[in-house]
Amino acid sequence: MEIMASAPGKVILFGEHAVVYGQPAMAFAVNKRAFINLKPGSGEKSIIKSSDLNLAISIDLNEEKKDFKREKKSIINYIIAALYEVHDGSPLDIQLHLEIPVGAGLGSSAAVTVATLAAAYQHHHKKISTPQLAKKAHEVELTVQGRASSLDTAVSTYGGLIYLNEHGEIIPLNFNLPNSMVIGYTSYRGNTAVMVGSVREKRDRFPEIMDPIISSIGRIASQARKLIAEDDMDLNYLGELMNINHGLLDSMGVNTKEISNMIFNARRSGAIGAKITGAGGGGSIIAFCPGKIDEVLRVLQKTDYALQVDLSRTGVKIH
Amino acid sequence: MEIMASAPGKVILFGEHAVVYGQPAMAFAVNKRAFINLKPGSGEKSIIKSSDLNLAISIDLNEEKKDFKREKKSIINYIIAALYEVHDGSPLDIQLHLEIPVGAGLGSSAAVTVATLAAAYQHHHKKISTPQLAKKAHEVELTVQGRASSLDTAVSTYGGLIYLNEHGEIIPLNFNLPNSMVIGYTSYRGNTAVMVGSVREKRDRFPEIMDPIISSIGRIASQARKLIAEDDMDLNYLGELMNINHGLLDSMGVNTKEISNMIFNARRSGAIGAKITGAGGGGSIIAFCPGKIDEVLRVLQKTDYALQVDLSRTGVKIH
Repeated sequence: MEIMASAPGKVILFGEHAVVYGQPAMAFAVNKRAFINLKPGSGEKSIIKSSDLNLAISIDLNEEKKDFKREKKSIINYIIAALYEVHDGSPLDIQLHLEIPVGAGLGSSAAVTVATLAAAYQHHHKKISTPQLAKKAHEVELTVQGRASSLDTAVSTYGGLIYLNEHGEIIPLNFNLPNSMVIGYTSYRGNTAVMVGSVREKRDRFPEIMDPIISSIGRIASQARKLIAEDDMDLNYLGELMNINHGLLDSMGVNTKEISNMIFNARRSGAIGAKITGAGGGGSIIAFCPGKIDEVLRVLQKTDYALQVDLSRTGVKIH
Repeated sequence: MEIMASAPGKVILFGEHAVVYGQPAMAFAVNKRAFINLKPGSGEKSIIKSSDLNLAISIDLNEEKKDFKREKKSIINYIIAALYEVHDGSPLDIQLHLEIPVGAGLGSSAAVTVATLAAAYQHHHKKISTPQLAKKAHEVELTVQGRASSLDTAVSTYGGLIYLNEHGEIIPLNFNLPNSMVIGYTSYRGNTAVMVGSVREKRDRFPEIMDPIISSIGRIASQARKLIAEDDMDLNYLGELMNINHGLLDSMGVNTKEISNMIFNARRSGAIGAKITGAGGGGSIIAFCPGKIDEVLRVLQKTDYALQVDLSRTGVKIH
């Protein structure tokens, strides 16, 4: 029997980097998904294919497990690591279809991980709760990446708008935001581990200066949570919090000239808030642009890549 | 008898905006000065001339005093306001020569104020101590501008590197810094009062978020003071503190696309630190570039104005 499972990509709205130091953060699921088709394989080995990524590999899942520390962080490895967790090793035929652009900071690896786990559990007729699935997916990301925030995998599992509180608890939020988010991204992708490491060095060097910055980012996430809960929330305030958060990311040293130009171009074209999303050092921005989506898309696409993303309430799903 | 007095311009190294909230700040005098030549006038009115600025006015200092609140903030008004404080009203012939570019964030008004006061006291054979002169110059700036930090006038009076502590006390610092400072400035000058007001609004809206940012800027100034006192200070640390301070100014909303491009261009050309200097919203940056002055000047001059400034130990001076 063929199973199809899918999970959404995510955007970090507030709190990247500070989350590493126990601060709250906020992210939402987008209407771009990773789809996994899984069925019993016809050959001796398992086949993993993605025509979107022009990838096809065959692997014997019964053989010795891969050591992901020595592997390139290919998206395929998240599929394999997820299968190691759930599957017995018999040959499978797996197809990955990715609506999420890779390298745009939209959490393609978390979405693929969650979708693969969901498909594999379904294949084995095993039930798993949403929190357990999110937890398992986080473990898979840890296995492949060495370290990872639990936020990405939580968002891909739950969908919607997710708050990660200061105790590391996942809190789905009610929200009533207009669909006015644009992602801009450069072809140069920052290295997350390098960025996280350089922030840590700065923090170790200047704790008295960096600690208030880190806690201020946490307070932005917490303030945004309160704001979004208001019936008559002022959208401009949310935008302003994004702008403040961006400056604090700049102070952490993860801004670049190209990112900064995207930020200011988006704001000048009508975005009421724009910030780095993700680890920075290249990579992506998110711009909040009610009534100005086309203008912001146009200006960003002049120099870089950009796409509209809508908040999606749909988390992981068996089709 | 003709008197010539001069006073240096200044650059704010750390703490702009946060200083408004009682945080410490640091600034230094530069080797660009304002010169005032003052002698008894030959006509019925006083004459104030500056061939550098292509300005010449005649004014009867015995007439009713100007209401500076209703005046354009011309540099001439600082001369007039200084004379109101010291001079009896008899006709004077005054020439202003300005090495300091106006609008580059180098504190031309404070330098002109201090030099005029010094010349006028000398003209009347009145002695005044350095702290008293700095205080009087600050009062003159307050009269003309409505509000002003005491830091600019202190630096123009004392010369050298000045720390304004959290109690508003002026502390001259010993220093042993290489002459490696470059100022970049755009033709678009930010409006200081507007910038200070918008930071205040942001702080009133989000005190829990902005207060740690403001105090973090204060800690940067205080950390820089300790660093500069070290015999074997690491210049890179000073640069890093400038970079962190810049991000915090961005989070306050006073960065612009043009300023940000200057900042990143300077850093990519070898500046180990670069930040907004002054109120932002346009205006100036300061880049610290040991061994890379020419490279940084060249890249900034491609799009904007730039000049090297050296720290000067010479404060106000009667020639």
